[in-house]
Amino acid sequence: MIDLHYWPTPNGWKITIMLEEAGIPYRVVPVNIGAGEQFKPEFQAISPNGRMPAIVDTAPADGGEPVSIFESGAILEYLAEKSGKFLPTDVRGRYRVLQWLMWQMGGLGPMLGQHGHFKLYAPEQVPYGVRRYGDEARRLYGVLDRQLGQTGACVAGDYSIADMAIFPWIMTHKAQEISLDAYPHIARWYAELRQRPKLQAGLDVGKDWRKPMTDEAKKVLFGQTAAGAAPAGN
Amino acid sequence: MIDLHYWPTPNGWKITIMLEEAGIPYRVVPVNIGAGEQFKPEFQAISPNGRMPAIVDTAPADGGEPVSIFESGAILEYLAEKSGKFLPTDVRGRYRVLQWLMWQMGGLGPMLGQHGHFKLYAPEQVPYGVRRYGDEARRLYGVLDRQLGQTGACVAGDYSIADMAIFPWIMTHKAQEISLDAYPHIARWYAELRQRPKLQAGLDVGKDWRKPMTDEAKKVLFGQTAAGAAPAGN
Repeated sequence: MIDLHYWPTPNGWKITIMLEEAGIPYRVVPVNIGAGEQFKPEFQAISPNGRMPAIVDTAPADGGEPVSIFESGAILEYLAEKSGKFLPTDVRGRYRVLQWLMWQMGGLGPMLGQHGHFKLYAPEQVPYGVRRYGDEARRLYGVLDRQLGQTGACVAGDYSIADMAIFPWIMTHKAQEISLDAYPHIARWYAELRQRPKLQAGLDVGKDWRKPMTDEAKKVLFGQTAAGAAPAGN
Repeated sequence: MIDLHYWPTPNGWKITIMLEEAGIPYRVVPVNIGAGEQFKPEFQAISPNGRMPAIVDTAPADGGEPVSIFESGAILEYLAEKSGKFLPTDVRGRYRVLQWLMWQMGGLGPMLGQHGHFKLYAPEQVPYGVRRYGDEARRLYGVLDRQLGQTGACVAGDYSIADMAIFPWIMTHKAQEISLDAYPHIARWYAELRQRPKLQAGLDVGKDWRKPMTDEAKKVLFGQTAAGAAPAGN
């Protein structure tokens, strides 16, 4: 059984989508990030970076003590290896997927996170930030669009954990005012994936928990310093 | 043989350190990012995100055609699997390393990159950006310091590709005005790793190529939009 420490956000959805798609049994442990539950010591023992998602696998492959893992990219790879699904086992296919997973982890996710912050959440207008991250968001959308045009399918060919990592972040395009009209291959891929019942089931986990972000929640999320409570997790 | 497409930056050094430490034969192909060589079509065929480092393995394990890989995190994992070094093969040890590798890819690298941009390179003063990324940088240093205090050794126990990913970014602490005095466990680990001859050999690759960044190079690196030339690579 997988215990999933989770809140419904793009990084959280990556894992509910994978668990649903791969048919892996799981229990959800809510981590209300607007209320600061990610700072509790018992959570930080699992996730030393203080970010959800994190998992505890109570029945790991080696039969030993439970294994805990943080960082959505590492969790996706772990679940793919555990289930034997959505990550090829041959060296070529495997790294075709892992490089796009890393691209999401190191580029698309953090940069859309920054764009969203400056465009939607920052308590003051910072035109330089909106422009910098808007430019980079559109550059990354362009990279993804070209790749999806070349494969004519998913980002690394067959549907994989790389798509599951990328899709929830592309879902933010409307709020971030990025039109898919300029990215026809992303639009095609997005519409196809949107139809997958298991992906939809993943997105539905905890959908009633999200409320418009209060000022108090913004303070918890965006007022973090070395001492305490920072940008959204991975 | 590994062909390494490279320029001496933190993300580039990750790979020269690993190649030296693991004793994997390689040839360096310079990618002068200040001169815009990352935008050449022949490079983008290897690295569709237009970022170095990237590798081409001319002798992959399956004996087939050369394999190309982009994203430093994917390259590190590939080289660890190819050489059987610096990444445990048991499931627990493996994911202990991979989660910290992902933490560097998704957190430490991008956030120190943003802090460096606002503090050192941005053409205008943006106090909000300096504060936001300074706070997050210090938070991440705190997370790393606690982890290194707990292991008493390297980030995931034994020296691994996670340390090789983190170390070159911690090297930026002086320029970013983050003192290691506040992070004694990082200071201990940093001093220990700094003594490793193979790590030093990795840092020496192309050390004469770096010159103070010209205004022209800044324009190439920081003026990128969807159409053309953006934040440093992964």
